Amino acid sequence: MPKFAAQIEYDGAAYHGFQRQAEGQPTIQGELEQTLAKVTQKSITITGAGRTDSGVHALGQVISFTTDWQHETGALQRALNVNLPEDIVILQLKQVASSFHPRFDARRRAYHYKIHNAECRSPLQRRTSWHVRQPLNVDDMNQAAQTLVGTHDFATFGQPPQGNNTVRELFATKWQKQSHELTFDIEANAFLYRMVRSLVGSLKLVGDGSWTVDDFVAAFHACDRDRAGMTAPPQGLYLISVTYDGE
Amino acid sequence: MPKFAAQIEYDGAAYHGFQRQAEGQPTIQGELEQTLAKVTQKSITITGAGRTDSGVHALGQVISFTTDWQHETGALQRALNVNLPEDIVILQLKQVASSFHPRFDARRRAYHYKIHNAECRSPLQRRTSWHVRQPLNVDDMNQAAQTLVGTHDFATFGQPPQGNNTVRELFATKWQKQSHELTFDIEANAFLYRMVRSLVGSLKLVGDGSWTVDDFVAAFHACDRDRAGMTAPPQGLYLISVTYDGE
Repeated sequence: MPKFAAQIEYDGAAYHGFQRQAEGQPTIQGELEQTLAKVTQKSITITGAGRTDSGVHALGQVISFTTDWQHETGALQRALNVNLPEDIVILQLKQVASSFHPRFDARRRAYHYKIHNAECRSPLQRRTSWHVRQPLNVDDMNQAAQTLVGTHDFATFGQPPQGNNTVRELFATKWQKQSHELTFDIEANAFLYRMVRSLVGSLKLVGDGSWTVDDFVAAFHACDRDRAGMTAPPQGLYLISVTYDGE
Repeated sequence: MPKFAAQIEYDGAAYHGFQRQAEGQPTIQGELEQTLAKVTQKSITITGAGRTDSGVHALGQVISFTTDWQHETGALQRALNVNLPEDIVILQLKQVASSFHPRFDARRRAYHYKIHNAECRSPLQRRTSWHVRQPLNVDDMNQAAQTLVGTHDFATFGQPPQGNNTVRELFATKWQKQSHELTFDIEANAFLYRMVRSLVGSLKLVGDGSWTVDDFVAAFHACDRDRAGMTAPPQGLYLISVTYDGE
């Protein structure tokens, strides 16, 4: 049966994360599988590149599934998008080799985090960013974030989704500030569970002066989950892209 | 009694526009007045600079009200913001001259409109922009929009909120494109009812090739409401700022 890969955008606010749950809570995977079943009249299990948490968004989640769809790929994409809820869409759909695995074959993942840094909360940003009142020093946050680049043990900032290897290779990090909006971009070969939100919460402590850059580095090098700062809330986090060999 | 002016941000999705309605539908004015009554224990009527439609957002709506508040202004702002719903906030609050009128004294109003121009709808932009599938030519849209600048009769694009004067002075218009996002900025001394959404809907017809720039100009100069194109939907529209003498 032909195998398909899809690039997915979703607003995670209404979902208990990406992964299907036994208890029947609404999830991204559950919605996609229900829509595939409706359109193809077959039960289909999908595989995702990453398991985003409850409330986390995606602009470039990647999934794969097999189906004996007889018509053109564009018609399948349109049929799925018409039937998906308004907070999930398939941006791209293409046929791939039967050996393709969206998680095991992924070489890089990129995430984006938004902070609204102002005295007043923002009604228009409330669903898509973290509101932080204290003025944040972006230079200090960048100095601390820069120490993360390279191959390191990130045990302070999260647990592995499976096994016990907490070493990851981090390619780049960058904080940028434009008016009241702070954005954080980070790319790695893979991430630990809650790692980006834990990093953002700890870097926020550097930005507001609670921690020095040295405090951050000491917590990082301790490789101890209890030394992490707070975990930033999910609504500011976006899975931006997953990159494969040959891309 | 001291008079106060406030700058307000709101997400208009849940409201039947700015203006209080007899039927008890939720409105921005209604929420603000209820919160003022709760905080000051007095019934207070507010005046707004402009009556945004159902579903339209604001980053810089201006209101005024009088109250015999005895404490500092910052305490009033904080008390109101704690009690306002999460989709409305007071960004600034200051005492003003008793003669101040947010609508009559306003010299300029600026609006912003967002279009998501892509084959696929965007879950993350669905509440804050208009999804247009057909590729839009921004150069043609700018050429048509440029003919609006100056003092003209805008009867084609809206009705006056009161009286029958449809002449307005338009200071600037600009379309910009970044990836799939088109933005429209427009500033005038004042606007007719639904004018920005009617302009955006008509300029979209130029962008998708349904109208030439000459068709747009002919409709504009006809001063006939029936010659306007479609009215763009409200969720893409933002009241950005209201400017007064001395600002």
